[in-house]
Formats: sequence, C-alpha cells, structure tokens
Amino acid sequence: MSVPVSQKLAIGIDIGGTNSVFGIVDHRGVITYRGAISTKKYTDINEYLDALYDAIAPIIEQVGGRDYIHGIGIGAPNGNYYNGSIEYAPNLPWKGFIPLAELVQKRFGISAALTNDANAAAVGEMTYGAAIGMKDFIMITLGTGVGSGIVIDGKVVYGHDGFAGELGHTITIPGGRKHWSTGAEGSLETYASATGVRLTALEFLAKYPEKNSLLAHYSPEEIDSRLIYDCAIQGDILAKEVFEYTGKILGLALANFVMFSSPEAIVLFGGLMKSGDYILNPTKEHMEKHLLPIFQNKVKIIKSELNESDAAILGASALVWELK
Amino acid sequence: MSVPVSQKLAIGIDIGGTNSVFGIVDHRGVITYRGAISTKKYTDINEYLDALYDAIAPIIEQVGGRDYIHGIGIGAPNGNYYNGSIEYAPNLPWKGFIPLAELVQKRFGISAALTNDANAAAVGEMTYGAAIGMKDFIMITLGTGVGSGIVIDGKVVYGHDGFAGELGHTITIPGGRKHWSTGAEGSLETYASATGVRLTALEFLAKYPEKNSLLAHYSPEEIDSRLIYDCAIQGDILAKEVFEYTGKILGLALANFVMFSSPEAIVLFGGLMKSGDYILNPTKEHMEKHLLPIFQNKVKIIKSELNESDAAILGASALVWELK
Repeated sequence: MSVPVSQKLAIGIDIGGTNSVFGIVDHRGVITYRGAISTKKYTDINEYLDALYDAIAPIIEQVGGRDYIHGIGIGAPNGNYYNGSIEYAPNLPWKGFIPLAELVQKRFGISAALTNDANAAAVGEMTYGAAIGMKDFIMITLGTGVGSGIVIDGKVVYGHDGFAGELGHTITIPGGRKHWSTGAEGSLETYASATGVRLTALEFLAKYPEKNSLLAHYSPEEIDSRLIYDCAIQGDILAKEVFEYTGKILGLALANFVMFSSPEAIVLFGGLMKSGDYILNPTKEHMEKHLLPIFQNKVKIIKSELNESDAAILGASALVWELK
Repeated sequence: MSVPVSQKLAIGIDIGGTNSVFGIVDHRGVITYRGAISTKKYTDINEYLDALYDAIAPIIEQVGGRDYIHGIGIGAPNGNYYNGSIEYAPNLPWKGFIPLAELVQKRFGISAALTNDANAAAVGEMTYGAAIGMKDFIMITLGTGVGSGIVIDGKVVYGHDGFAGELGHTITIPGGRKHWSTGAEGSLETYASATGVRLTALEFLAKYPEKNSLLAHYSPEEIDSRLIYDCAIQGDILAKEVFEYTGKILGLALANFVMFSSPEAIVLFGGLMKSGDYILNPTKEHMEKHLLPIFQNKVKIIKSELNESDAAILGASALVWELK
C-alpha cells in the first residue's frame, strides 16, 4: 500500500530530563494524539525504548499503521543532528553517547531524525509558526535556560560538528554573573533566562531596600519570573527595573547576533515571553542602540506563534518533513 | 569560439578608498597581470569606469580577448553581493547606491559579481588558501579595522539583506572603548585592530610609566602596531602586555563566534598577524577558556595562506568561479 506523503503524519517526541512527551502531527501542525512517559524512571536506554514503543505503537495502529507515518522526529538536549545521537547530556539518565535515532528507527521500523530541542523549536517555527516563509531568522528560547536555533538561507545551522547555536552561553557581560552550571562569567543565560531574572530580582532587592518592592514580602524561594511579572503589572518599580535590566542585556546580545548573520527576524519563545512588553520594549530599544546603522530598523523581534505546551512536539515532528 | 572554463581566467578588482588594484588570475590562484588606478581621483563613477576600462582592456587583449575571461569579481567596502551594489560607503568618493557590478558588466561586456572586501577574502581563502576543502570557517581580518567573512556549509553568509558578517562591530566589552567612527562602546574593532592596539599602547604608557617601556622614547604619532611588535621582540614588558590584552579580548570574541556557528577553523589575516605568537597565544588561551566544553580543543586558529599584497585581488577574483 502506498500512502501519498501529503496524507502522511509525523511523530514528534520531545525528551526532557523528567518526562518525554510525544504526539502525532499532520502537515498543518495539528496534533491529533498526545502522550507522555517518564524519562528519568528508565536509567537503561533499552527499557526506555520499550516504554516508548508500548506507549506509541497503539496510536500508530489507530491512525492506520506504519504506512501512514512518514517518520519520527526527536528533540533532545545535546542532540546531534549529524549522527542522530545524544552526546553526554548532563540532565538525562543515559550517560555517554546514545545513537538514539538509530535505536528508535530499529525499534519502530520507521525513519527517525534527531536534533537538540532548541534547533527543533526553530524548525517547528519555520514549518508551522511565526517564521513560515523566512529563510534567515534566529529563534531564542527564554525559559529556565536560554536556548537557540539559527536558520540561515532556509537551513538550521549545525556547524562542522553538529553543535552550533549555543547562544545562551555566549559571553555578553565579561566578568559578569557566574553561571550556576558552566562556571562561565557573564553568559547570556545568567541574565536572560527565568533563572537569571530571578537572580536579578534577588540582587536588586538586597541592593535597593528603599524601593519598598512588593517582592520584599515574599521569601527568596517564592520569587520567580512569574511573580516578578505580577508585581510589575501592579506598578512595582523594582520589578519593572528587573525586566529593563534583563532587556538591556538581551538587546545587546541580540545586536551582536544580528551583526553576525543579519536575520530577517528574531523569534522569541519560552516562559519569559509572558512578561510581554516589560521585557520586549527594553530589548528592542537596546538592540537598535547597539546595531550599526546598516542594520537598524530592519530586524523584527517577534513572539513565537507556537503554543508553548505543543511547541516541543511540533518542533520535533517538523524534522520529519525533511526526511526523504 | 568556445574556450573551456578550465582554461579561462578571472579578473579580480579590489576597491579601496585610495587605490583600486586589479589582476588577472588563473584557476590555481596565480596572478599573471597586475595593475592599479586611483580611486579617490574619480569622484564621478563614470570617469572611474572609463579609467578602469582603459587600464584593464589592454590586458584582456593580451590574454586572448574576452572569450578567455570567465568574469570580473569585485571586492569593495559596503559591497552587497545580492544586488552587486556599493551602498553608502563612507570612505569611497561615490555617494549613495552604486550598482557597480551592473555598470562594470555593461562597460566590459563580461559577467561581474561584487561583495564586500572581507567576504571576498573568505572566498579567496576557500578557493586558493588555508581554507581549501573547509565547509565551515570564519575569516577575521585584523588590519586598520576588523573585517570578517563567515562561511557555513560551504557558502558565505550574506544574511537576509546581504550585510551579514560585521563581527568587528559586535560589542565585546559593553561600555568599553569608544569607536572613533561608529561611536559604539566596546566593539571588537576598537581593541583588536592595528588602530586598537596602538590605542591600548598609548593607554598603557600613560597608566604604567614605571614599566619604563621602550615605547616611551617615541612620540604618540610614531607608535603603531609594527613598532609595538619590534619592542616586544626586544623583551619590552609593556609591549608584550599590549598584545596579551588584545589577545584576551580577541579570544573572548572568537569564543562567542564559535558558539554561534561552530566552525572547523578561524582563519586570521591582516597586518596584526605579523605579531605572530605574541597575539596568537593569548588569543587561543582565552578563546578556549570561554568556550563550553563541547567546543573546547576542536577549533583551529590558523593564519591565512594568502600573500597579503595579493589577497584582495585573489579574493575578488575567486567570486568569478561561482558565476555561471
């Protein structure tokens, strides 16, 4: 039986440190079936593959069988597109080098492709989201950390070894805030992630008690980027300054990225985007300020159009349409 | 008469603010004829084209006529590869938008392509120099200014508008040294160019008189990167520290570039490279220091293999081989 590609479906799997979520996706980016299994429960990769197969196989049957599935796309931390492997991911239970695309392909009898989660998000945005039709853009994920996927001339940039696009780890403020995990000083992630925003708030609270911030009524454990946003909405000066400071540094970093690859747009995604204009306005202002005149007022900063809870599955599934 | 492409020649023209140099180049990168005309003398672009034609036409005749020329490649400041135009180049006599590739093509009856001088250098390095066979590298020119050409997956990165690759203007030290022309604070060019190295030496001389530098015997006008190198060779501590400081900042910038596009190598070119290990050693050390572990000890820093006086012609000529 030969099913036309236009009628085929893609499976998207997003592997996180705690859970793995998956879905069956059509060409327009509609997710028809969803599911999830634990990641951290399976310290043996073969047991993980068994659990994944047990969860997904019945859904494949339900849509008509393997002939209706064009492929399986996987987004994973430290995922290398070139060899389809997860390489030394610190937050996953499987250590070392895991040729996951190959293992999945064998287990399911379906072609599989793998990349890191941030690159998958960029492919998702290009296939179903805000970057449809764009050939040059940079996707930045502002979540617990700062991830990135770079698209140049219609293709994700993987570099000579498959690891390109670690913009969250570029040094924006030399000698600045020390990264909790890498130890680097002043990398973008230490300021422009939800984690970084929280640290900025704690710093500002200690430094400016006279501003009587609403945030002072909460314990350090309670303070997160969501609460800072809630306080900013209520007019809290210090909370607003936290976002201005974040946008100032993010804008500087974006200017540097623009002068590298001159993208049409920067697509921002992730939890911090809920803070809306509090972070977007200073980001735009400071990006423009640091750009050479030939780049000014040209580059759009736009919000992702992917639903946050679906984005990881959509991004992973979008890899499939590039499979032959 | 149909001449096989393998026997054809390329014309390379490099347009500088003062002079334009040109040469006829074969497939192996051997320059057979050379010449130059003034750039700044011709404030009218048509007079410039006439002068260029008068200088080059006799050489074309000498190699057998137009049939033996595959095309004309032009490197120019603010050159845009996409439309073959020079756009608002501050240091050239012609203002505004100059569709030079088209004008040259019409005047000579030969296909022409144009890009900026730094991108041309990258193409030259890939075609005839240290980057033969490389698909992912970044070329950085450390001359009076800092230029760059980025190659990803075998192609020069031009970005959505043709202006990608302005790495000399990325902000490496926020709030740092003010750029003499753009006004930006802390861009790479203010430190890692010959101009920047001279400024660092002047700063260090004022700041550390107790170091009794040999450079103190010269007037500020006499101090340039060549003299600083000469003093370093003689064991001058302050002169060596100038290069260490430069390498520290250049290394940091290179680390950021590597985490963007993960190149196989960084090719360094230009006058400052004469300072050899005085600048290369600290550059390598600090690049490695700022890289994420997955990028460490992977990226080569190599010197250009193009003869400096020929590089501009070779780079411009190399554009021709990509013409159909």
